Amino acid sequence: MENRPFDLLNNAINKEVLIVLKGGRQIRGLLKAYDVHMNLHLENANELVDGEMKTNYGKVFVRGDNVILITP
Amino acid sequence: MENRPFDLLNNAINKEVLIVLKGGRQIRGLLKAYDVHMNLHLENANELVDGEMKTNYGKVFVRGDNVILITP
Amino acid sequence: MENRPFDLLNNAINKEVLIVLKGGRQIRGLLKAYDVHMNLHLENANELVDGEMKTNYGKVFVRGDNVILITP
Amino acid sequence: MENRPFDLLNNAINKEVLIVLKGGRQIRGLLKAYDVHMNLHLENANELVDGEMKTNYGKVFVRGDNVILITP
Amino acid sequence: MENRPFDLLNNAINKEVLIVLKGGRQIRGLLKAYDVHMNLHLENANELVDGEMKTNYGKVFVRGDNVILITP
Amino acid sequence: MENRPFDLLNNAINKEVLIVLKGGRQIRGLLKAYDVHMNLHLENANELVDGEMKTNYGKVFVRGDNVILITP
Amino acid sequence: MENRPFDLLNNAINKEVLIVLKGGRQIRGLLKAYDVHMNLHLENANELVDGEMKTNYGKVFVRGDNVILITP
Repeated sequence: MENRPFDLLNNAINKEVLIVLKGGRQIRGLLKAYDVHMNLHLENANELVDGEMKTNYGKVFVRGDNVILITP
Repeated sequence: MENRPFDLLNNAINKEVLIVLKGGRQIRGLLKAYDVHMNLHLENANELVDGEMKTNYGKVFVRGDNVILITP
Repeated sequence: MENRPFDLLNNAINKEVLIVLKGGRQIRGLLKAYDVHMNLHLENANELVDGEMKTNYGKVFVRGDNVILITP
Repeated sequence: MENRPFDLLNNAINKEVLIVLKGGRQIRGLLKAYDVHMNLHLENANELVDGEMKTNYGKVFVRGDNVILITP
Repeated sequence: MENRPFDLLNNAINKEVLIVLKGGRQIRGLLKAYDVHMNLHLENANELVDGEMKTNYGKVFVRGDNVILITP
Repeated sequence: MENRPFDLLNNAINKEVLIVLKGGRQIRGLLKAYDVHMNLHLENANELVDGEMKTNYGKVFVRGDNVILITP
Repeated sequence: MENRPFDLLNNAINKEVLIVLKGGRQIRGLLKAYDVHMNLHLENANELVDGEMKTNYGKVFVRGDNVILITP
């Protein structure tokens, strides 16, 4: 197995991603950094409710254990 | 015991799998990569609701701790 | 203490088992492999609802942290 | 502190115990083996509902993280 | 910091304690042993409901991760 | 980064603190000891309900994983 | 990948941050210290309910596993 799942995140650096969190929260923003715990640093980040932008966070740090999925 | 459960995932690389996540979410897609935490990289991934495709994610990274089961 | 709980699983390899998962899900199938995290590889696996077969998964990988109990 | 909690389990090997699990499930059976994760191997095991035997499992493997308490 | 929280438990050995568990369960009994995971061995243990004794367990092993608090 | 969050707890030893626990429980008492898991030893401890003292625990050991926040 | 998510926290030391916790709790305050578990030390900290200040904690220690996100 040559590929690793984290390669997908590495290729998404400086690109816009959608983050789905446990509890239903969704955040869209520019992925600036991640680590092995899946802690994330996003910029221009907005929380989405029913697909609509609700809260503009600007920069945001997300603790990795809340993440369900990340899609570029 | 010669077999290991991860052999099943290894044989599913580049094949379509159905992922059932905690909280009821289901995702169908092409398995591109996994790791020992069961983090997954899927492509052509769609979220299913009641067996119907709902959201087309394209590429998606799933954090392993959300996984209940994976079936090729 | 000479016996270890995993001996029970080892003796169940290639036999039919019933798996009870957190959240109420039950799966019956042939146990092909397990590991120390209780990750499982089942074949001819069916999900049960109220004791009736509901979904035929064929081969399935179950992430160990979802398991409540396994009975041969 | 000379005693260790696991001594209680060690003395219960081959004796009948009542296991109370998270989520309200209760199992009564003969304790054949345990390990440090509190994984259990029970025989002649029955699930109890409101103190009444409901399901006869025979042999059962219980994943330790589900256990609340064990009483001989 | 000279004191350690576990000193409190050490001093409670062979004394009656009240254990409050996640999910609302309360157990009163004689503390015979504990370990670093907060696994407990109690004797003369009774489960309390609304402050009233409900179930007499005699000896009981409590898995440490269920504990909220212990008070001598 | 010179400061560490635990310095705040260290400075609170022998002072009154309010502990907010998961599940809504609040305890006010004198902080006697803590460890890296945030296990706590409190004295003169009272459980609060709606800001009113409800149960006087005297000495209490709190398992660290229940803690949300501690405020001196 | 040169950036690390924790750089964002490091740059937020001595600045006001908004902390969103599991269970819906939100706290606004001055970030004085953090560690790798995301334990936090805040000062001039206020709990917010529906965006309004509700409880003035002054100094507060937050256990890291409760954190969903932190935004400067």
